[in-house]
Amino acid sequence: MQNWLQKRVALTPTRTAVRFNGISLSFQELNTAVLSLAGKLARVLDDNPRVAVLMSNTLLGYEMILALQQLGREIVLLNYRLAPAELAFQIEDVEITQVVQADTYTGQLDVVQQVTFDYVQSQAPQMVEPVAEFALDQVTTIMYTSGTTGKPKGVEQTYGNHFYSAVGSMLNLGLTASDTWVAAVPIFHISGFSIMMRSLIYGMTVQLYERFDATVINQDIMAGDITTISVVPTMLKDLLEALPSGQCYPETFRTMLLGGGPADLATLRHAQSVNVEVVQSYGMTETASQIIALDPTDAISKMGSVGKPLFPVELKLAHANENGVGRVQVKSPTLTVGYVRQPAKFADAFEDGWFDTGDMGYLDDDGYLYLVGREGDMISSGGENIFPDEVEAMYREMPEIKEIGVVGVPDEKWGAVPVAVVELVDGADVSATDLLAYGREHIAHYKVPKAFYRLSKPWPRTASGKLQRYQLQQFIVATEKIN
Amino acid sequence: MQNWLQKRVALTPTRTAVRFNGISLSFQELNTAVLSLAGKLARVLDDNPRVAVLMSNTLLGYEMILALQQLGREIVLLNYRLAPAELAFQIEDVEITQVVQADTYTGQLDVVQQVTFDYVQSQAPQMVEPVAEFALDQVTTIMYTSGTTGKPKGVEQTYGNHFYSAVGSMLNLGLTASDTWVAAVPIFHISGFSIMMRSLIYGMTVQLYERFDATVINQDIMAGDITTISVVPTMLKDLLEALPSGQCYPETFRTMLLGGGPADLATLRHAQSVNVEVVQSYGMTETASQIIALDPTDAISKMGSVGKPLFPVELKLAHANENGVGRVQVKSPTLTVGYVRQPAKFADAFEDGWFDTGDMGYLDDDGYLYLVGREGDMISSGGENIFPDEVEAMYREMPEIKEIGVVGVPDEKWGAVPVAVVELVDGADVSATDLLAYGREHIAHYKVPKAFYRLSKPWPRTASGKLQRYQLQQFIVATEKIN
Repeated sequence: MQNWLQKRVALTPTRTAVRFNGISLSFQELNTAVLSLAGKLARVLDDNPRVAVLMSNTLLGYEMILALQQLGREIVLLNYRLAPAELAFQIEDVEITQVVQADTYTGQLDVVQQVTFDYVQSQAPQMVEPVAEFALDQVTTIMYTSGTTGKPKGVEQTYGNHFYSAVGSMLNLGLTASDTWVAAVPIFHISGFSIMMRSLIYGMTVQLYERFDATVINQDIMAGDITTISVVPTMLKDLLEALPSGQCYPETFRTMLLGGGPADLATLRHAQSVNVEVVQSYGMTETASQIIALDPTDAISKMGSVGKPLFPVELKLAHANENGVGRVQVKSPTLTVGYVRQPAKFADAFEDGWFDTGDMGYLDDDGYLYLVGREGDMISSGGENIFPDEVEAMYREMPEIKEIGVVGVPDEKWGAVPVAVVELVDGADVSATDLLAYGREHIAHYKVPKAFYRLSKPWPRTASGKLQRYQLQQFIVATEKIN
Repeated sequence: MQNWLQKRVALTPTRTAVRFNGISLSFQELNTAVLSLAGKLARVLDDNPRVAVLMSNTLLGYEMILALQQLGREIVLLNYRLAPAELAFQIEDVEITQVVQADTYTGQLDVVQQVTFDYVQSQAPQMVEPVAEFALDQVTTIMYTSGTTGKPKGVEQTYGNHFYSAVGSMLNLGLTASDTWVAAVPIFHISGFSIMMRSLIYGMTVQLYERFDATVINQDIMAGDITTISVVPTMLKDLLEALPSGQCYPETFRTMLLGGGPADLATLRHAQSVNVEVVQSYGMTETASQIIALDPTDAISKMGSVGKPLFPVELKLAHANENGVGRVQVKSPTLTVGYVRQPAKFADAFEDGWFDTGDMGYLDDDGYLYLVGREGDMISSGGENIFPDEVEAMYREMPEIKEIGVVGVPDEKWGAVPVAVVELVDGADVSATDLLAYGREHIAHYKVPKAFYRLSKPWPRTASGKLQRYQLQQFIVATEKIN
């Protein structure tokens, strides 16, 4: 396929490509800026086909990523929230030699050459010819999955992955010439980066934010030219809470695309009441964003479901137990072509040509997928399978509990039993007896945690906010036990 | 990819798939009918992987095509307007052994086994398992191009061709959940068949008509739930003329997709005045419908242009002369994978990996394509190239002329010179002197036909209405010459 940015300039040169902090660039203007940057980058880059980028959501960073694409480089998107040691691991693993980075991050890394945005911009641009083609089988981005378990994996994403992702989303959400998608999620994650690629493929405006500020974004949405926003559950709640009482989202706003976890009933009802259509979705770095999504008309009736596989995606549940709970496996043209330097690990992720997501779930009679948890998080207790997600979700409805994490600990009799780490709401006080009683009232007894521990340090989370349960074992300290 | 019809049943079972003569079927209902037919077809089909269909635009024919897809057969779409000898050629060329056909056409063919729709329906259906996958590289349809020159070619179209065609169209025209596309063009042509495939891919309603009746279709459009219609120029004119004075198309109507030739300024202005957005387009059987389209906002300012290549399509003009007129060549994932039993002819159609359409055209400074004619129709006269299209278009503006065709005849001095076959409007009378004078007033003298002949028999046209100029030579008879 022709280079998407150049194709956009040919097709819709005057349409708005991106808005940021009051600046608005058409595809033509964006391209001019990008090619100028590409000409400057060409002066400072070495011959390594892979270049890393370390940045937040800024217009300059946005242009820098596109400029690297125009030069035909593979872009390694680093997460600036990671610790230096974590970044050092990725940099070594992916064998890059230069990191192009926002000036803010100067000195954060010491393992490779750091090329600051300022330094790039100080160069006199040389003439560069953008690559003619974006071949669908060509890798364009590498993103490390923080992973809820184990060593990070460098996920290689092709142009084809991003193209089919955009097509699958479009077939689900529709497309109009006035679509404007808010990118307030990080563009170094697939959730944000996929919005950039949709912009090129659809000819769509991206409204970019460096920080998520619910009040500001609500104001912009109320102004009427935003149609879509990608959010995680906390952002959804913040937006709803920040909306002045009595106000509704305008008719022009179409979709709040929710990833990274489900919304609860209260939140969904709140969303409905202010004219917000929440599309719950499921996807991962390996699938170049959402592959399964729930139609907003089903949001309440299919609460807890992540929906149905998008048009190009196939789904099956492998090794299902008698309750229909099985391993979520997919086939999709959006599926990564490999993990950097870990071909064996990548091969292991497949069974009979199906990619195993590591998630467990079941389908209802209408074909809607419900996730019950990560296979690695499952607690096998006396022949029963316990999924922490279910137990946690139940306890989150208890007024005294702010957050909870459930893990298994070895047990002589049952093999393993669930225990919980609990963060109480400010000023609340409950006994172990209260907690046990609440659990036994709501779920099978074998699923109720056998012990409860107070949260003693911050929750261990991945960069995208998912709880890393395997780290919770070290939170289980006798002195913190709730009696 | 998963079988598209089954995928649609899984994703949007209750959405309307097709409407015909007051009957409306959801995807679920359509699938039930299709699988029942598939079970009946399985009783009567032999093992030939290719099956021909002979039918007009009826619901039963629509279902029959989908049933053959569900059985994994390659479908040869025959044009019932062709003469028996033409059909016989195609049937022999494509090596089919059975024609499934509407009862209307009983006895029209005698070369293979004719299986009537009635006979199929009289069978007791057997259980059949629909094919699991629609592989993108798998041939699903074969359509013979009538061709403006030479022997018909069986164009093999894959699922991938149809998928990318639908995606390219969607990226240009947008998509909403309420889209309803009128199929009044034949579904045995790519113009109609592509609407069927879009329906499966988009989850879109097709409103099917057996006959094009401008009054009926206008009434249905005015009723408000039709968004799109595919038309050829005469249909566009008929729809506009049949619209009661003072009426406009409703806001819900989005696009009139025009193929098969350009619209003139008066028609475009008329369309604008009644709220009809005309998208002029260019494509062919070999490209699985439109590959180039003109944005309606450019319809007037870029009059005569067919637009720009759709997102997945690349275009270049090869061997351009000093005026920029060259051979229209394309790269596209919608491009046919071959001509039945004519691999050499197919290979000949490519130059350096680009498919040569046989059309000649030029690009303006903004990248819009203008077609000037078929390469084979070009008249080379004294070192100058003359395109019949241009000369004909100019003469069509002359009040006395109803239709005109221009071809080259050998000439000792110039190599070749243009001559014209003319159909005058009823009661008109003009002399050769008048015709010459009119031409010299409007175009370069060398382009003006050297002689004019009265039309003596019906215009030779392809099934899609294009003039077969190569047949005009035999119309040039001394007795018909206009003096």
